[in-house]
Amino acid sequence: MSSDLRTMAIASKKAAFHLGQASVEQKNKALEALMEHLIREEQSILKANALDVALASKKGLDKPLLERLSLENRLKGIVHDIGQIIDLPDPIGEVFDKGTLSNKLKLEKCRVPIGVLGVIYESRPNVTLDISALSIKSGNCVLLRGGSEALHTNQRLVEIIQRSLQDADLPWQAVQLVANTDRSEVKELLQLHDYIDLIIPRGSSSLQRFCKENSSIPVIMGGAGICHLFVDESADLEASIKVVANAKTQRPTVCNALDTLLVHAAIASDFIPKLVHRLSQDGVAFRLDPTALAMAQGPSCSLAGPEDWDTEWLSLVLGVKVVGSLAEAIEHVHRHSSGHSDGILTRREENAERFVKAIDSAAVYVNASTRFTDGAQFGLGGEVAISTQKFHARGPMGLKELTSYKWIVRGDYQVRT
Amino acid sequence: MSSDLRTMAIASKKAAFHLGQASVEQKNKALEALMEHLIREEQSILKANALDVALASKKGLDKPLLERLSLENRLKGIVHDIGQIIDLPDPIGEVFDKGTLSNKLKLEKCRVPIGVLGVIYESRPNVTLDISALSIKSGNCVLLRGGSEALHTNQRLVEIIQRSLQDADLPWQAVQLVANTDRSEVKELLQLHDYIDLIIPRGSSSLQRFCKENSSIPVIMGGAGICHLFVDESADLEASIKVVANAKTQRPTVCNALDTLLVHAAIASDFIPKLVHRLSQDGVAFRLDPTALAMAQGPSCSLAGPEDWDTEWLSLVLGVKVVGSLAEAIEHVHRHSSGHSDGILTRREENAERFVKAIDSAAVYVNASTRFTDGAQFGLGGEVAISTQKFHARGPMGLKELTSYKWIVRGDYQVRT
Repeated sequence: MSSDLRTMAIASKKAAFHLGQASVEQKNKALEALMEHLIREEQSILKANALDVALASKKGLDKPLLERLSLENRLKGIVHDIGQIIDLPDPIGEVFDKGTLSNKLKLEKCRVPIGVLGVIYESRPNVTLDISALSIKSGNCVLLRGGSEALHTNQRLVEIIQRSLQDADLPWQAVQLVANTDRSEVKELLQLHDYIDLIIPRGSSSLQRFCKENSSIPVIMGGAGICHLFVDESADLEASIKVVANAKTQRPTVCNALDTLLVHAAIASDFIPKLVHRLSQDGVAFRLDPTALAMAQGPSCSLAGPEDWDTEWLSLVLGVKVVGSLAEAIEHVHRHSSGHSDGILTRREENAERFVKAIDSAAVYVNASTRFTDGAQFGLGGEVAISTQKFHARGPMGLKELTSYKWIVRGDYQVRT
Repeated sequence: MSSDLRTMAIASKKAAFHLGQASVEQKNKALEALMEHLIREEQSILKANALDVALASKKGLDKPLLERLSLENRLKGIVHDIGQIIDLPDPIGEVFDKGTLSNKLKLEKCRVPIGVLGVIYESRPNVTLDISALSIKSGNCVLLRGGSEALHTNQRLVEIIQRSLQDADLPWQAVQLVANTDRSEVKELLQLHDYIDLIIPRGSSSLQRFCKENSSIPVIMGGAGICHLFVDESADLEASIKVVANAKTQRPTVCNALDTLLVHAAIASDFIPKLVHRLSQDGVAFRLDPTALAMAQGPSCSLAGPEDWDTEWLSLVLGVKVVGSLAEAIEHVHRHSSGHSDGILTRREENAERFVKAIDSAAVYVNASTRFTDGAQFGLGGEVAISTQKFHARGPMGLKELTSYKWIVRGDYQVRT
């Protein structure tokens, strides 16, 4: 394989022409081969991965990052997820918005792949498999640029993916790894608009900004989540505490974890002390507005500063604010949400519907934890990104979100008059 | 109205929150008011327009541009088109991809407006009304930056649009005109990503490139059309000549006009002389490859150069090339098409389907003129642009293409385990 980026991108574009027309049987055959190879090659994959982990550990990478890098005990789960992607229907070729015009032209839209994806991500090598599997099934080729820490693992995985593509008579160039992990290489990738159709940066907001600012190719922005729940005066308070606890503590380091809780004034003095008592046991620290702070003192409670309402905590910190009305809650979410996941807990349907209508986030919840905003949870078989932009796709992006469409017009030699 | 661009954009964003939740009745009421005002104010509009035309004529604008600038005899047609947009269903609030997950969470997608559009266009003031009407119906606010030549007309039209919005109790800030027409002002507009969600440049490819290169906001690229028709050996030759004539001559200056004709070798010596004879009468000049040139001599015929296959003619010039097979035709289109509109003329269904599958253009035709790629022709009530990109929307963009969606998740206090 050539390491020259442009040569790789040209090969991707060429492969995209073939992969885009492949049958679902062929694409599933490649994914089945991939499952088999991953099981058979588990030892060699874990060996390459152990090398990456050892090198990263020597470099002083901190524990959460080392955990993200490790594939120990994770391959079986990944293989299972690929099986789920095989079970999903092929989005390519789906016909929709069908109709006949008054001049008898038959018009329809037909779903097609986007083409070539450039995916830039950091240390998690499971992303290599997730994205490759979703790309193959949706007929898209992909240029993967993973983090330097995962290089040996990624090289091993991409060899296996390419062999699986060949097993199904599909071009191995459909999935390629950019082995050079310099930032300058990323910059070059972002300029290859003649060959790459979409850039997906998975990682920090600084990586996303870097891509956005340096790319001549459309970029999917996502992942940043300042998430809210509003506990309405009519909510089931006991159940609400469980939902808030789940949204905050089940996995606090991820984008769909809860950041700010809004509580209706009418139930605040009842709800907030119970909540603080309960979640303090799980190690949650609270940043409360003055009204809320007056209701719940203790070592886990402190006064919120104005910037706290615009903070994605990614840790066991929760902002809590008392609001006088649903309108005030909506106004707060409207002002401070990053447009990822926001919800209301209520027994009143009219309040739920007012909230759902007014809040324009990728996922809007009624009586559920924000932690569900996730491709696998939504039944998409995984995700390539969680988009927080309104352009093209929003929220978890699975197979369908990796497609475009073409208009097909069939006639009998009609002309325009 | 403030002329400060940022202030205008902030007002747009604020108006978008209200317009996005407006009922279809309210939005249609604004459009009905607009139709009435346009009829009542015809004289004052035409007076402002005559001033623009006179100024432009003095500046030496050429005839086709003056024709594009003039609204003379065009207002009735525009009013009729607004009526068609009123008749179309409201895309906003449409629910799709509905389902229930195994944990009983109810999941659906709900169509929402994109938000604030920034539309940059050149001399045609009818675009002001087309885009405003489509934006209002789809719940989007719009900042219009028209060409300096149309300034008086656009000011008059936007006053009328704003009055119509007020008649329906909708914020007049939903449609605003950027009165300063400097390029520097465009550059500033392209940087207002906190308030503007999408940039739509309607005009030359240099305008589009300028927007793409200077924008931190997603840009819809479109309009460039190097369009092909392939006459298969099985095609109805007499009907094909009519289709080719229509695609080339019905309006040669537009993006969906035919640029290159590919002819199967088996019928070339029969078809090409007839075609040249017939279309020469309409003033078409031919650029033929050596094989085709050997079949049709005459004053309208000359040898094609290699760059001719990559040229959008926008005039009565047609490239003609003889190909040995369907595969060769597909290969040529694949290499030279701009991805706008390409078609096959054939009696063989298997050839039609092979072409449709292999050609990845916004609109792919079987036995019809390429001239149909147009929002009104496709039943969309107009268009804000014809996208040639694969991201977000493709081909004519009407109401639906001006929307995004949100995921709505309704539960009974479910948590993620």
